[in-house]
Amino acid sequence: MHNNDQQAQQNNIRVTLAYDGTGFAGWQIQKDKRTVQGEVETALEKMHRRRVKIYAAGRTDSGVHARGQVINFRSDISSLSPDRFFVALNSYLPPDVQAIDSTEVPPDFHSRYSARLRTYRYYLLPAEAMPPEHRLYCLRIRYNPDIAALNRLCVPLLGVHDFTSFALPRDVSTSKKRRIQKAVFFMDGPFLVFEISANAFLWRMVRSILGTLLSFEREGKGPEALEKVIHAQRWDASGESVPSAGLFLHSVRYEGEVY
Amino acid sequence: MHNNDQQAQQNNIRVTLAYDGTGFAGWQIQKDKRTVQGEVETALEKMHRRRVKIYAAGRTDSGVHARGQVINFRSDISSLSPDRFFVALNSYLPPDVQAIDSTEVPPDFHSRYSARLRTYRYYLLPAEAMPPEHRLYCLRIRYNPDIAALNRLCVPLLGVHDFTSFALPRDVSTSKKRRIQKAVFFMDGPFLVFEISANAFLWRMVRSILGTLLSFEREGKGPEALEKVIHAQRWDASGESVPSAGLFLHSVRYEGEVY
Repeated sequence: MHNNDQQAQQNNIRVTLAYDGTGFAGWQIQKDKRTVQGEVETALEKMHRRRVKIYAAGRTDSGVHARGQVINFRSDISSLSPDRFFVALNSYLPPDVQAIDSTEVPPDFHSRYSARLRTYRYYLLPAEAMPPEHRLYCLRIRYNPDIAALNRLCVPLLGVHDFTSFALPRDVSTSKKRRIQKAVFFMDGPFLVFEISANAFLWRMVRSILGTLLSFEREGKGPEALEKVIHAQRWDASGESVPSAGLFLHSVRYEGEVY
Repeated sequence: MHNNDQQAQQNNIRVTLAYDGTGFAGWQIQKDKRTVQGEVETALEKMHRRRVKIYAAGRTDSGVHARGQVINFRSDISSLSPDRFFVALNSYLPPDVQAIDSTEVPPDFHSRYSARLRTYRYYLLPAEAMPPEHRLYCLRIRYNPDIAALNRLCVPLLGVHDFTSFALPRDVSTSKKRRIQKAVFFMDGPFLVFEISANAFLWRMVRSILGTLLSFEREGKGPEALEKVIHAQRWDASGESVPSAGLFLHSVRYEGEVY
């Protein structure tokens, strides 16, 4: 038992979530729509018998999946060890969103503002037919891209840049500067995976970058073409975005964690 | 173009199918239910403008998936190369059943009667929580079984036996003798896979065998206990069956093929 002697204390609990984005209108609560935030807050309300406000590291879009979404919230349930909180939470959650682990964190930990690195993965399947079990979790492409060429195209993305060219026109973020630490393609079984890590991402940025990289590889364009797109700082300089189904919020890393 | 000079000839076409069994009441056509056979015959009817009767190597149960189901049927579409038939067929099929390849086979090839070896795989996930993207394709178990002990339990299954103990009481097969060639557990990433190959299987046999193996491993029983179950030849001698969601018809092999 944890904190049995301090019943009224509010612990800051961090939970890792995995979800299948197919059945959700994205992360963020919206009226009359099924959202991940809505389902998790409803589950926590049942456990706490009061509304519990949660914060998420990444506000994923409609149809986007997660393996390592991180949330935090205040809990006064003293009868549960923080490390086993996720097991209890799962019994209140639907099967398409599940908690993977849980732990107590310092009072000033904030899943969104404390996050140092967010990693997304996009799964492509170069194949003649789409195996039905994978149809909601990857994008099938009808050719075999040159992986070395794709990785060369990624190089200009690294470092700090203004990513206006990969933002949506309606994006009102005050700064569109982000720091990309990693952008790489690799094979994982039959899948061609695009993995990209940054301090933070703009809305739809990963899908816009990947769509541009794929079309440039097909057209035989080199890294200098991608550099031009970045420097243009115009949203219409980039290529068409890829659909949401192949995208996963893979992990989020915080101060002091290995990344 | 294939057989353009023999328009009326009926070619025997073999197609490999993959499907997500979740949305189907099994393989076999039933009135007012969505079945894999029904969807494939409807698609072929659209292509041929007549009913096309298909035969399948394994009549999978409700909720069971397939990666390598094999069907055959007669086609007089001479404008399609048999090797590309599957691509055209996919444009008529729903996303949860797709053709993986196709080829022309001799007139006497029958996907069911010519099959020599059928292989099923069952995916178990020893984990504290079920990642939502895998929830329809594996069974989560809350402990780590001893894989060596499971593989020892499999040994008495090998060879020709009467498998009445793993049949359903309502199974009216004339003979319940089957030849099991392989039965093995191995890890594939986070999954514990049970792979079993036989000339043919009784209805629900794989799920009954696996349920029995898992409960015997938990109870610390050895291969001699499993031998007793086989020799009992009574359907109530076996343990509880595992659910359908983790089961895949993995592959089917024919005379002259490597297996």
